[in-house]
Amino acid sequence: MPAAVKYVGLDVGGTTMKAAVVDDTGTASKVATLDTNSERGQEAGLKTMCDTIELAVKSAGLTMADIAAVGVATPGLMDIPAGLILDPPNFPGWKNVPVRDYIQKAFGKPTAYQNDANAAAFGEKWVGAGKGARSLVMFTLGTGVGGAVVVGDTVIEGEHSHGGELGHLRIEPPNIGRRCGCGARGCLEAYASASSVVDRAREELASWRGHTELKQYQTVFDQKQFNAEIIFKAADAGDECARKVVDDTAYFLALGACSTIAVADPEVIAIGGGMAKSKQFLAKVDEYIRRFGLPYPTQTDRYAKALGRTDLPAPVKVVFAQLGETAGYIGAAGCARLLVGK
Amino acid sequence: MPAAVKYVGLDVGGTTMKAAVVDDTGTASKVATLDTNSERGQEAGLKTMCDTIELAVKSAGLTMADIAAVGVATPGLMDIPAGLILDPPNFPGWKNVPVRDYIQKAFGKPTAYQNDANAAAFGEKWVGAGKGARSLVMFTLGTGVGGAVVVGDTVIEGEHSHGGELGHLRIEPPNIGRRCGCGARGCLEAYASASSVVDRAREELASWRGHTELKQYQTVFDQKQFNAEIIFKAADAGDECARKVVDDTAYFLALGACSTIAVADPEVIAIGGGMAKSKQFLAKVDEYIRRFGLPYPTQTDRYAKALGRTDLPAPVKVVFAQLGETAGYIGAAGCARLLVGK
Repeated sequence: MPAAVKYVGLDVGGTTMKAAVVDDTGTASKVATLDTNSERGQEAGLKTMCDTIELAVKSAGLTMADIAAVGVATPGLMDIPAGLILDPPNFPGWKNVPVRDYIQKAFGKPTAYQNDANAAAFGEKWVGAGKGARSLVMFTLGTGVGGAVVVGDTVIEGEHSHGGELGHLRIEPPNIGRRCGCGARGCLEAYASASSVVDRAREELASWRGHTELKQYQTVFDQKQFNAEIIFKAADAGDECARKVVDDTAYFLALGACSTIAVADPEVIAIGGGMAKSKQFLAKVDEYIRRFGLPYPTQTDRYAKALGRTDLPAPVKVVFAQLGETAGYIGAAGCARLLVGK
Repeated sequence: MPAAVKYVGLDVGGTTMKAAVVDDTGTASKVATLDTNSERGQEAGLKTMCDTIELAVKSAGLTMADIAAVGVATPGLMDIPAGLILDPPNFPGWKNVPVRDYIQKAFGKPTAYQNDANAAAFGEKWVGAGKGARSLVMFTLGTGVGGAVVVGDTVIEGEHSHGGELGHLRIEPPNIGRRCGCGARGCLEAYASASSVVDRAREELASWRGHTELKQYQTVFDQKQFNAEIIFKAADAGDECARKVVDDTAYFLALGACSTIAVADPEVIAIGGGMAKSKQFLAKVDEYIRRFGLPYPTQTDRYAKALGRTDLPAPVKVVFAQLGETAGYIGAAGCARLLVGK
């Protein structure tokens, strides 16, 4: 019998759990989804994780014998080396949840465990926006600002499982910065999360003199009716006020990205999250990174020409993430694959 | 004959080259020093590198047969994977210098090549301030602000050999930040390098109302007569104006350190450079990091108590670098050792 060369990746979310079987090329089977029902407690949650994994394997027409390893990604405060969820804000009552060991015992397979943002970035680097790259930094703009740093095959997990917490890069100093949900001032998340973008739009509107489609939303506080996507769409349609807000968002994100360049100098910076899917926005982020990032020699600049070098690396690539909602389980499966030496 | 278990580390500086033989415990022989004489050109420079290495081996009472591998650290813009110095600012006329291959051929030994700040951090992690730690971030305050990030045995070199360029972390945004030598505004180096500390002291003096020992230096522009060390010493002696300048330096450095925490979440942050050897300063950096860094669960906090966890990691350790001027060649030797699988 040939060795099993398939992996299951599981992405545990606040609302649903998603799993799929992934092969050595990073291709995923049809996703299996079950409700998380976190209010039923962590024992039930661990059981649902196993159910989702089994459902994915069955749906793919396979049995666990075909699976070489399992990878699990979860949100929340974690102890990655110990394989534990500590105390996830979206999972009231869950505490010190032994995710990795539970799943390892349930299936008797090598089991990888990772933060969901880290897993998504690993997936993007493996078979998505950073395929073939040596290193990738990922920002995900959503309810918060998620992040992760992958260098080679190594996810920068950090000593406290807090590596790649890029939403808390400082954009402005504490004395002038905007207040973040973490309690500090000046964090990227306080400028570029969905609700922060809306907050800044409201402030812009308060002093906006010209015409703007956004004016109608000034006193709308329902997130369904006025949100970051509306602002990004209005910007793409040419609304000047919306463009200003989106341009500022790009500026703040770029400042954060420049800090990751100073620390890790990645080959690729990937930007994920539904609201950010605007080419204008991406182009602006790219422009600001080039303007404010530390210059270094690249194959195309005058410096390289003066040195007679055409073999230097290209400048950092600023791109959209490609895997969308599949990144978490594909990345988790990729971590599992790494665990068995592939 | 037993396998050779000694390594030579060479640290190439603008004025002198230093080399020593280092054993598996990181203990270095007496250092061999030769003048760099960079004005004689790069061929002569490469030859001097070899001479310094040979001198170190001879001084240690050994021959090259006792040496398992060689490590070389150089300053300046580099192409680390290619083993080249590109165009070092302190070495006029040197260009695309094939340091690694030249030395590899000269001695027929595996040869590691690294940026000098990276090598120093690797040394500190191996046998200095970060001994036994899983990860270390290092800041060196001097003429500039150097930096490096080491995770496990991996130096974060970056795609353009610009990983760990922590002097160019953004402390304040470009619209209000101080002008840095790199051309950008708001870089850490523009706040915490020796000359930046002096600049800020002059500004402080201009509006200082009380008594201060620094007043006498207000119009002294000779670096030998008024420099950062004088300011740090005055602060340690209780001078209020100097304390304000040093306290601000600690604040700015801590903001940079917080960004490295958001990216890499290191176990240890080491601070090097002669001027920074003040316990008050170190304590302030530590205090500001705790105030402004992203909180995470540690073994001692209330959060860990609520979870009933005493096995979580300790908070990030903020410490002085320990190896001083030996860090470069000890670290280079450590990189060489890694190359031969030790």
